[in-house]
Amino acid sequence: MKREIGVGLVGSGFMGRSHALALAIAAVAFDLPLRPRLELLADRDPATARRAAEAFGFRRSTGDWRELVADPGVELVSITTPNVLHEPIAMAAIAAGKAVWCEKPLAPTAASAMAMAKAAEAAGVPTFVGFNYLKNPLVRTAREIVAAGELGEVTRFRGIHAEDYMADPEVPWSWRLDPANGGGAVADLGSHIIAMARFLVGPIEELVADLRTLVPERPVAPGSGERRKVEVDDEARALVRFANGATGTLEANWAATGRKMHLAFEVTGTRGAIVLNMERMNEMRLFLRDGRAGRQGFVEIPAGPAHPDYAAFVPAPQHQLGFNEIKAIEAAHILRALAGGEPFYPDFREAAEVQRTIAAIQLSARERRWARVDEVGAG
Amino acid sequence: MKREIGVGLVGSGFMGRSHALALAIAAVAFDLPLRPRLELLADRDPATARRAAEAFGFRRSTGDWRELVADPGVELVSITTPNVLHEPIAMAAIAAGKAVWCEKPLAPTAASAMAMAKAAEAAGVPTFVGFNYLKNPLVRTAREIVAAGELGEVTRFRGIHAEDYMADPEVPWSWRLDPANGGGAVADLGSHIIAMARFLVGPIEELVADLRTLVPERPVAPGSGERRKVEVDDEARALVRFANGATGTLEANWAATGRKMHLAFEVTGTRGAIVLNMERMNEMRLFLRDGRAGRQGFVEIPAGPAHPDYAAFVPAPQHQLGFNEIKAIEAAHILRALAGGEPFYPDFREAAEVQRTIAAIQLSARERRWARVDEVGAG
Amino acid sequence: MKREIGVGLVGSGFMGRSHALALAIAAVAFDLPLRPRLELLADRDPATARRAAEAFGFRRSTGDWRELVADPGVELVSITTPNVLHEPIAMAAIAAGKAVWCEKPLAPTAASAMAMAKAAEAAGVPTFVGFNYLKNPLVRTAREIVAAGELGEVTRFRGIHAEDYMADPEVPWSWRLDPANGGGAVADLGSHIIAMARFLVGPIEELVADLRTLVPERPVAPGSGERRKVEVDDEARALVRFANGATGTLEANWAATGRKMHLAFEVTGTRGAIVLNMERMNEMRLFLRDGRAGRQGFVEIPAGPAHPDYAAFVPAPQHQLGFNEIKAIEAAHILRALAGGEPFYPDFREAAEVQRTIAAIQLSARERRWARVDEVGAG
Amino acid sequence: MKREIGVGLVGSGFMGRSHALALAIAAVAFDLPLRPRLELLADRDPATARRAAEAFGFRRSTGDWRELVADPGVELVSITTPNVLHEPIAMAAIAAGKAVWCEKPLAPTAASAMAMAKAAEAAGVPTFVGFNYLKNPLVRTAREIVAAGELGEVTRFRGIHAEDYMADPEVPWSWRLDPANGGGAVADLGSHIIAMARFLVGPIEELVADLRTLVPERPVAPGSGERRKVEVDDEARALVRFANGATGTLEANWAATGRKMHLAFEVTGTRGAIVLNMERMNEMRLFLRDGRAGRQGFVEIPAGPAHPDYAAFVPAPQHQLGFNEIKAIEAAHILRALAGGEPFYPDFREAAEVQRTIAAIQLSARERRWARVDEVGAG
Repeated sequence: MKREIGVGLVGSGFMGRSHALALAIAAVAFDLPLRPRLELLADRDPATARRAAEAFGFRRSTGDWRELVADPGVELVSITTPNVLHEPIAMAAIAAGKAVWCEKPLAPTAASAMAMAKAAEAAGVPTFVGFNYLKNPLVRTAREIVAAGELGEVTRFRGIHAEDYMADPEVPWSWRLDPANGGGAVADLGSHIIAMARFLVGPIEELVADLRTLVPERPVAPGSGERRKVEVDDEARALVRFANGATGTLEANWAATGRKMHLAFEVTGTRGAIVLNMERMNEMRLFLRDGRAGRQGFVEIPAGPAHPDYAAFVPAPQHQLGFNEIKAIEAAHILRALAGGEPFYPDFREAAEVQRTIAAIQLSARERRWARVDEVGAG
Repeated sequence: MKREIGVGLVGSGFMGRSHALALAIAAVAFDLPLRPRLELLADRDPATARRAAEAFGFRRSTGDWRELVADPGVELVSITTPNVLHEPIAMAAIAAGKAVWCEKPLAPTAASAMAMAKAAEAAGVPTFVGFNYLKNPLVRTAREIVAAGELGEVTRFRGIHAEDYMADPEVPWSWRLDPANGGGAVADLGSHIIAMARFLVGPIEELVADLRTLVPERPVAPGSGERRKVEVDDEARALVRFANGATGTLEANWAATGRKMHLAFEVTGTRGAIVLNMERMNEMRLFLRDGRAGRQGFVEIPAGPAHPDYAAFVPAPQHQLGFNEIKAIEAAHILRALAGGEPFYPDFREAAEVQRTIAAIQLSARERRWARVDEVGAG
Repeated sequence: MKREIGVGLVGSGFMGRSHALALAIAAVAFDLPLRPRLELLADRDPATARRAAEAFGFRRSTGDWRELVADPGVELVSITTPNVLHEPIAMAAIAAGKAVWCEKPLAPTAASAMAMAKAAEAAGVPTFVGFNYLKNPLVRTAREIVAAGELGEVTRFRGIHAEDYMADPEVPWSWRLDPANGGGAVADLGSHIIAMARFLVGPIEELVADLRTLVPERPVAPGSGERRKVEVDDEARALVRFANGATGTLEANWAATGRKMHLAFEVTGTRGAIVLNMERMNEMRLFLRDGRAGRQGFVEIPAGPAHPDYAAFVPAPQHQLGFNEIKAIEAAHILRALAGGEPFYPDFREAAEVQRTIAAIQLSARERRWARVDEVGAG
Repeated sequence: MKREIGVGLVGSGFMGRSHALALAIAAVAFDLPLRPRLELLADRDPATARRAAEAFGFRRSTGDWRELVADPGVELVSITTPNVLHEPIAMAAIAAGKAVWCEKPLAPTAASAMAMAKAAEAAGVPTFVGFNYLKNPLVRTAREIVAAGELGEVTRFRGIHAEDYMADPEVPWSWRLDPANGGGAVADLGSHIIAMARFLVGPIEELVADLRTLVPERPVAPGSGERRKVEVDDEARALVRFANGATGTLEANWAATGRKMHLAFEVTGTRGAIVLNMERMNEMRLFLRDGRAGRQGFVEIPAGPAHPDYAAFVPAPQHQLGFNEIKAIEAAHILRALAGGEPFYPDFREAAEVQRTIAAIQLSARERRWARVDEVGAG
């Protein structure tokens, strides 16, 4: 009989369901050393928690995350709450010696994030952060190609994560807009593209950035005449220099009318380039400067069993993975790491570095000058 | 406590795993009236069955599908074996009064398929056939658009399902090539595009077809010098006329070098058109002839929560569903139908009609003449 | 001083202007052995002819094409009239010993086309037919790839030319619909895709076809209540077998709502495939089954100076050629052939073979049976 | 008889040929009030000038541009030399009271450009600068859409012009790399994307930029071991703020491996967005936030006769224009302006504003700080 691990899930929204789906899928798709046991689900509202537990297949529910953290049946604490709650829950879990799977961005500030990373490291607790797009088989193939030097020396990263869920000025004020969460688009979407840039090219050393709030105030509720001031950015842009000498641009934008999943990048090297756009997350474009004249161009590579982890889902190429299956790869990697396999990437330490990059962007924008990432939140 | 239904799965290959995944995903993603209980898994080889049961989360396993059909804990029999076994297993399940979920194509011949449909109808047993692509939210949106008359009168269907898994002449002989399975590409892939054509436009009335075997003999095993004759088609093409007056072409091809998932169609009407290509299964192109001059074109619509069932998986558009999530929609529809909800489409009757269309293609190709679908396998 | 050749243009519509543009562009873009002298332009209406001559840069004009053919200053007769006039004008030009550049389709019937070809051959008069799409540098690269065996043995051609200029039932009756022109979509657009199929794969030997008239009658004039019966096809489809064993489908359609330039094909071989779509006529997709696992896919090749004749227009890739520049390549090839260089393809003989294929399609559709191309119009 | 204007062309390279082609095409495609007479062509090397005059259809040639400027038969001076010569030639032409058509970038420095603009204005001489991409019918449609407020308030511009002709470190040193030309990629390609940004959104007010030289030294000749230092940028990036409040990013890059014509932009407004990419210069993507749920997406609009000037070339949509036909639109606009019609955009004044933006980018990069465009080169 396979060893089990008890999972406690905090939160029952979109990402809560996604964690539940990911665990369910991973259990069937992968041959894993650990079987997840969906032990306990916590939501502020006990009735919601009960309904979500039933829906997601958890055994028990609670209205208090502290109870979940303390529960002896819970070995892995999965956090899918608004950002502002990540720190207290994670800290409590770490203190209880439990592994933590936390959604991004890790914390509202670089300092919090770094404190969380250090606490986990001091406690020897494994941590996992939900930068799910890094688990896409094609993104990992891109990293392999970069690492193998197939593109030559990497010189350039052009990255963006743009969606439009906040483009309409009538979208009401919500927790996403609470400065206590640590930022607007730069935190919510910027964290993804920064994590991607770091995964593919490495640490960003210095940058100059601009933040902008497009909608200065929003209705307090849908259709309400009463409006509340918006204090976070709708758009964030930066020119960046990586530690390895590469340069580029980053943009995070949640008001990019028409865009629904424009998380995209181009990595350019002296001998080739990769273009990947999550609008079509099952295909990658690869250029290598060694083709025959008249036959050169970007190869459109469909995701397939030759790419990492794809074959767990379908044996044939281009049959396609969805958002939740990518998340299931994340879950599988977590379960393997918990069973003592390969360490998981990205952990709290990595997420804290992402957070510092966000903080540097905010610093640069505030002071309207180039900023070094090591000016902020050093650990 | 939710009512449960005991599932017995026959087969442990790609589609077996896909059924297991679909059930696991559906249980979390949807709010279903019935909870699937993975009761029993059968595979010819008991050890394989045992391993698959463990991997897929089934309680028990067996080396004999007859045992599975007879098992009192099994209420729904899921068949994912080679085609040639569909009939005996389904007939036994029907005789035992059990619901049947069968992969496509339903049977090697139209006569078998029709017999199965009639047996199920006589027994009052619900049946479900795995034409999974019909469950894609965009395919169903396409059907809604057609049904609502948004394209005007439908005049044209241009359909294809081309892949290349048999393109290499060194791919060895296998059960797929056994004429006992009822055909080559025309059965394996043709069934999908015929089902699609029927779903979107309606029954095909007459057709003229051409079949071709590209690779006349194949190695009996990988690398073997011994070769075995191939008696089924690698390519099938037909000109078709639909009962409603629309006309078009169909192609099924498993030797289309370079193509991995080219299941695609264009439905044209007097006022608009839809283009859908499963190579990019999360987007649909819609043209309506009412745009302003200079602003007209195909709208590229990304799958999103406004399309049927998408929101069960992710609340945001363009975050994308994968092959197994489409299959999970199929599973959810089955569970709802079993609980007494909306009848499931497509059932054995519909699959038998698909089979008759395949038979008409084979007849037309053999006799090199136009053939009517009602010449064959009438029920 | 460069040798000149006097050009006489019959017709002043879209294609007349295109010939004039092509000659003007070719003269600057290419280093040609012959300089075209725009001598005389004929149009039924003398005033129109005069205006067009002024606009297109011709020295003189006339209301009578016979005068043009007889004019001693005219050495090359360019015919851009409705199809029904091609034969008399070309025959007169041939009789006068003049070279002829004629638009497609060459004639209303295969018999006429063959008679024209024979007359030209007997007279030793060089002929040129305006299948302009064959002059696209990427189409010619495709042919080179096929000829060099890079795709292995060619097994399949899937071709279409669909537009929608006749989709609206209110488009009035016009000469295009006159059966005297030899057909509807099958002649107007079918000739292009047949020429393409022959260029890339070779002669079609037998076929079975279906023709359909979608709009049974049309207004005699825009907005008119009076309607006139339509006796030609709006849609034509065929299953084809090539002399070399390849098989495939062809479609010609001028009522394909939403499509504006869907002249597209896929050529498949045992080792590779080419996909080209004139909707994006400056790019070609090439698959070769020799890539490394995980790096395979279609290469998206932008047209560039490595492709034939592209460099005459721009030295840098992907700067793109337009419709008239492709036509200018045709003009350049004609001028070179006239100066005694490489023979021009396609000439009247080739166009007559295209016409016979059209005739075989019409025969097959009429008699609802497979037809051999050599049943019709043999020369 | 139409009025003529004598054209003198300085330069016989790629852009020289393109001017000649553009004039030849424009004369046939458009009904113009002025007919260009190709009077005189100048190139440093008299033999080259003679050959080019013959090839491009000019009556006479000279080895001295001063002679051309002074020639009484020359009324319009067309300058297609390296940037460094633009100023002296243009100034001489202006002094001679002649109209000037100059390639971009106008001058090596903002000061020079502004001096040229002022001189022309003082002399009342019409000027025309070859930002050809602005003449693309779809780019102009984009501007119309923006101007009509169809996108709501414009908030964002994301622009890039990336190619890879300098990516290979073995590309030898050439005049493009001479700092006397006023910059590297920022001047050569940056000028295009800045002109585009200004055309669509308006003046840029402030910016922060980064320049980078990727290849520090290059061979003095192909294959040479001797290398020469590179003092200009290979890559330029900027965060920009427009006078109207919109913000965005710009990139110019001539070392973007794999990219051949990546001149692309996204203009976002509060109610819609336009995406245009010259890699496919005959299509535009338009999103308007007013579609029906489930039918929303970017409309893929092919260029057609409903867009400005397209119909001069072909009457049917998606038949496509090429690089030189866009240039012919530029030529047509120039000839119309010269005949007293609509003033031409962009003239020297506009080009000088582009140049100031380049200068501000260089200033910002040098001093590593935000810079205002009005800090530099004010006129």
